[in-house]
Amino acid sequence: MLAEISQGKPLPSITKHVTQEKINLYAEASGDFNPIHIDESFAAQTPLGGTIAHGMLILAYMSEMMTLAFGQSWLSQGKLSARFKAPARPGDTLTVSGEINSIEDGNGVSYANCSLECHNQRDEVIVSGQAVVRFLGGES
Amino acid sequence: MLAEISQGKPLPSITKHVTQEKINLYAEASGDFNPIHIDESFAAQTPLGGTIAHGMLILAYMSEMMTLAFGQSWLSQGKLSARFKAPARPGDTLTVSGEINSIEDGNGVSYANCSLECHNQRDEVIVSGQAVVRFLGGES
Repeated sequence: MLAEISQGKPLPSITKHVTQEKINLYAEASGDFNPIHIDESFAAQTPLGGTIAHGMLILAYMSEMMTLAFGQSWLSQGKLSARFKAPARPGDTLTVSGEINSIEDGNGVSYANCSLECHNQRDEVIVSGQAVVRFLGGES
Repeated sequence: MLAEISQGKPLPSITKHVTQEKINLYAEASGDFNPIHIDESFAAQTPLGGTIAHGMLILAYMSEMMTLAFGQSWLSQGKLSARFKAPARPGDTLTVSGEINSIEDGNGVSYANCSLECHNQRDEVIVSGQAVVRFLGGES
């Protein structure tokens, strides 16, 4: 967890390697068996040119980074909005990073507004997002 | 997909059965092996009293419902913010539902603002959310 929650503070970045195996497990867990995720020969014939990870798997990585930074405050009171910019593919190495843009205080409760980004090994943005974490004033 | 996008329109609801097996698969896919999700004897001794599903797995179900309603418009341009209200547990049957609250138009582009909810078999709200979908005016 962050030792201190303050404006401009970078969030701890994490790195994830995308594999077809993880995508297949995600399909089983979520029940989303869209062939664009799991059928390599089908996906190769689409404009995407191959299988892509489920978007929500990428958001799970972003949420994991937020959990590392904020712990229970994130898990119980977090709010994430995200925009998908490019697909993540098997073989990609993704990095999730972010920073605290601003802190809003009021009545003993504080909100940290964070910007988040997931990019791949070619520095292409996969997902950009905004997150808000609610925590008690003075808590870190 | 919805035949028509208009204010007040309910979204197609979906039902999901949560099992420990799906939670375990999700842990493998996401890399989130927090024992509160996968270690039944550990989790039984916490205030939660047993294992709970990963919050992002529930969001995946909400995203699946939005994909059914809006197809590619959701996948490429969707925005979801969510608030976790209660944990989902193995054995729960979850229903994701929602409706279109309002439509905003401008310059040939429209935005559908939707409210979403996931509740369990006891009608407890697990996650509530707001989603925005961008689509070309007149497109459905």
